Amino acid sequence: MAITTIGLDGDDTLWHSESHFAVTTARFVELLEPWVEPTTSAEHHLVEVERRNLGLLGYGVKAFTLSMIETAIEMSGATVPASAVQEILDWGKELLDHPVELLDGVAETVDSLMADHQLLLITKGDLFHQESKLARSGLAEAFTGIEIVSEKDPATYRRILARHRVAGDEFVMVGNSVRSDVLPVLEVGARAVHVPYHVTWALEEAEAGDEVPTLRSLADLPHLLGDWAGAPDD
Amino acid sequence: MAITTIGLDGDDTLWHSESHFAVTTARFVELLEPWVEPTTSAEHHLVEVERRNLGLLGYGVKAFTLSMIETAIEMSGATVPASAVQEILDWGKELLDHPVELLDGVAETVDSLMADHQLLLITKGDLFHQESKLARSGLAEAFTGIEIVSEKDPATYRRILARHRVAGDEFVMVGNSVRSDVLPVLEVGARAVHVPYHVTWALEEAEAGDEVPTLRSLADLPHLLGDWAGAPDD
Repeated sequence: MAITTIGLDGDDTLWHSESHFAVTTARFVELLEPWVEPTTSAEHHLVEVERRNLGLLGYGVKAFTLSMIETAIEMSGATVPASAVQEILDWGKELLDHPVELLDGVAETVDSLMADHQLLLITKGDLFHQESKLARSGLAEAFTGIEIVSEKDPATYRRILARHRVAGDEFVMVGNSVRSDVLPVLEVGARAVHVPYHVTWALEEAEAGDEVPTLRSLADLPHLLGDWAGAPDD
Repeated sequence: MAITTIGLDGDDTLWHSESHFAVTTARFVELLEPWVEPTTSAEHHLVEVERRNLGLLGYGVKAFTLSMIETAIEMSGATVPASAVQEILDWGKELLDHPVELLDGVAETVDSLMADHQLLLITKGDLFHQESKLARSGLAEAFTGIEIVSEKDPATYRRILARHRVAGDEFVMVGNSVRSDVLPVLEVGARAVHVPYHVTWALEEAEAGDEVPTLRSLADLPHLLGDWAGAPDD
């Protein structure tokens, strides 16, 4: 069956995101240096606080900012000054306000894919921030559907395919997260393509099987789709 | 034209929300007392910080919590201790984790409305938190569509009506906010019913015209719909 519809992840697939979080995390570790014993890792502690808060705070910059503040208070034994908390708040706002930087080749590739396919943006995180990033990306017009979801699990993908009246074997999902963009998509009988990003958030780490096509860049996707279209049905 | 589809707002229409924010705001004002001159109002200052942050942080508990922290730092001249910041963080988590309390008569009314109408939940705010509240409300099965949106403007309502293939004159929106649930709905040529809540967030305040039906309780909606159905077309 031919692929009619392509699902594209946003953060770290279309535009840079995790690299900005990594820069902020490095500043955060530096900020906490006065209160952290050399043997402990502030970064590790932050990830643990994020993990513990995930069920209540969800994904996105606001959750990350609240978890940074909580980590700073915890690791400093509640002695961190208000000025440091203000600094963390400012970093959160900088992240929200950061210019949207497309990954190399994304604009041209999206442009070429939309000629022959229905494109859906399927992205996780904060509704407000994701809409703002999409608007600033210049890509909004390319998508026939925008799906900003709280979790990417098989039920989410089933709902999206049903809503857009797409059969599993007509759909391919493309993204950088094995846990969110690949595994649940395979589970609903659709195809997935992994395009790794150079940084992965600790809470997104997972292993893809060897059978999942992995591309170095989104720019290689049209070629892969061409191969699929030319191959005999399996 | 008969009403086929009813849009229902969530916060302060189906379940209590603003009253919890009001309780937290009162605690916040008390917390800041040592740093606030008697002539200034911490509550007023908080609303101003929320207003200034709205474009970047959007709506919801996480935005409110970040704005409380920022206000506390500002009003204290950056002398507020980490323990007070922690207290604010804890209040934010309490708000997110608060049991969902339906308004009086909501469960029965939704049950009766769904017999003859397609029901859409149309709610603003944090995706993750709204989904969690809906799941805990016991009402999720009543809705054929869940629309969690970042802003309720005419374009949003047009998109929702198109997606669900509902004409403007078949649709009525019901909610507590004149600014979000009434005015933009009238602008797209549909009907709106205002069901005021006893507390309104400062940033949602607006005046409804006299021609907008106003009900004391959602429980009065079936009666109004019955009146409309029996009235000659205007």
